[in-house]
Amino acid sequence: MSIRIGIYGYGNLGRGVECAIRHNKDMQLVGVFTRRQPETVKILTEEAKVYHVSEAEKMQNEIDVMIICGGSATDLPKQTPALAKMFNVVDSFDTHARIPEHFEAVNESALSAGKTAMISVGWDPGMFSLNRLYAEAVLPDGQAYTFWGKGVSQGHSDAIRRVEGVADGKQYTVPVPEALDAVRSGKNPELTTREKHTRECYVVAEEGADKAKIEAEIKNMPNYFADYDTTVNFITAQELKEKHSGIPHGGFVIRSGKTGFDLEHDNIIEYSLKLDSNPEFTASVICAYARAVFRLNKEGSVGCKTVFDVPPAYLSAKTGEQLRKELL
Amino acid sequence: MSIRIGIYGYGNLGRGVECAIRHNKDMQLVGVFTRRQPETVKILTEEAKVYHVSEAEKMQNEIDVMIICGGSATDLPKQTPALAKMFNVVDSFDTHARIPEHFEAVNESALSAGKTAMISVGWDPGMFSLNRLYAEAVLPDGQAYTFWGKGVSQGHSDAIRRVEGVADGKQYTVPVPEALDAVRSGKNPELTTREKHTRECYVVAEEGADKAKIEAEIKNMPNYFADYDTTVNFITAQELKEKHSGIPHGGFVIRSGKTGFDLEHDNIIEYSLKLDSNPEFTASVICAYARAVFRLNKEGSVGCKTVFDVPPAYLSAKTGEQLRKELL
Repeated sequence: MSIRIGIYGYGNLGRGVECAIRHNKDMQLVGVFTRRQPETVKILTEEAKVYHVSEAEKMQNEIDVMIICGGSATDLPKQTPALAKMFNVVDSFDTHARIPEHFEAVNESALSAGKTAMISVGWDPGMFSLNRLYAEAVLPDGQAYTFWGKGVSQGHSDAIRRVEGVADGKQYTVPVPEALDAVRSGKNPELTTREKHTRECYVVAEEGADKAKIEAEIKNMPNYFADYDTTVNFITAQELKEKHSGIPHGGFVIRSGKTGFDLEHDNIIEYSLKLDSNPEFTASVICAYARAVFRLNKEGSVGCKTVFDVPPAYLSAKTGEQLRKELL
Repeated sequence: MSIRIGIYGYGNLGRGVECAIRHNKDMQLVGVFTRRQPETVKILTEEAKVYHVSEAEKMQNEIDVMIICGGSATDLPKQTPALAKMFNVVDSFDTHARIPEHFEAVNESALSAGKTAMISVGWDPGMFSLNRLYAEAVLPDGQAYTFWGKGVSQGHSDAIRRVEGVADGKQYTVPVPEALDAVRSGKNPELTTREKHTRECYVVAEEGADKAKIEAEIKNMPNYFADYDTTVNFITAQELKEKHSGIPHGGFVIRSGKTGFDLEHDNIIEYSLKLDSNPEFTASVICAYARAVFRLNKEGSVGCKTVFDVPPAYLSAKTGEQLRKELL
């Protein structure tokens, strides 16, 4: 019997989830729920249907896990607590500072309805968080570092596009190689924001725009660019399309920690991701956790969970016996 | 209240556990259990005592978790099932092929006594196994690779020392850089044993020994060296002591997997360890899981577990709230 999945919101992440379901044999996409007119939304899966979000309520018996693919700024804080009253849910809420309040709201809904909800699933938060936790638990005397990139930051790309005279643009976050090397050496360096990452911008200027002015405005933009060494490259719309239309990302979680009676030995734990498609990978993590949510709920384990609460075996379609034999 | 730990067996691993306990504020070493005469064994922890293994039985109320530091070949298959009838236990059983039978034996003991037992805790099996599982669950369409080293292999060093004319020796397992690069490129290469690792031997010959004969004998040794490109370096006892007395190790778990509707995107997940001290790091992993075992048993979760069965949060001394705030 497959796990019946609903996708709530059909942007890049929703499409990624659709792809991941296709490659997980024990899962089946039942429907995509959209705020648009359903007949205007084309999906890739023949067997599934498109519904208006208002129809979700009627589908409670058709769907085992609803994967919520809205944005963290305004969608998820409302959607996840509301849907957790009707469905087992997974979201990818990624506003780190607001996770505690989101957790409380979702936990209350899920507990009251006997549902299982997982928030903040993806790679950061998600796989990176797991690696921060495991590494800290194993090497309590140490220091942790997270680097992002090389990859496209959607937020920073949007910020570039809002600058006057900019027709289009893309921003890459790039970890500084010297900083990575210093961390890997076990020196436990104190690194400033500027020392950890650089920002590379590829900008298509509108005709007749003042490029020097655009460049200065980007480089001095507070929060987004002012604290970084930023480079601005002006290119044509054609080149942007050809060379910068992907959504790659990745990064590194490194912990440098000491062991020994007098902490005389250095040890480095490093986890890294190199992703051709950020949303597809995030979606793949979400699908593995949708399997876990389905199982946890069957066992009566309800309420809000994070990746910290789920035994790794619950993510795999294999039995405990298989896992011990093949992967341990 | 601290978690009261016993160490059963006091070799390199036992001493590593002793060091790790010292740096985990919520743990306390109660005693070391040895097969030797207790008065001949000097330990590093002033507050702890040395007992003969025959005294363990009487200490059931004094110890929350017994960490078993015997060898996998002959010690652990007997010790862990026996001790799991009296204590919550953790071992580092690492004979991969025999894990299923060891699991069954330990599970039966632990279940019958209402104890919680964890087997095969360390880095491989252990942290590497976890990473194989997480990566496979997230990227089901892909291929997994494990590389070991650069590090000292105890088994291979022992094999060298058994060769006639060898006074002492040390063997390093070294991953082949080109193989690592090929895997990271996403090409999913098929790699032979020889293509994945080389073996570097540092040998002290006895006076007057036939070095050419020693070298040939090492290089042609079945199972240990014959399937590898092996180099043999003859050095002095002095140099061996100065440059090769540590026990470093490490390695890489890499999964290359595809995402997208037609699997058109490549993604690489890489986990690596670089350890100054193999036994101390193994011991550090074991201590984090001793904390988990203590908690699981308090909750009534008994029987045999592996790293696949334990929610990551159980490894940390922090509360769920702290973890979500600081590490998610």
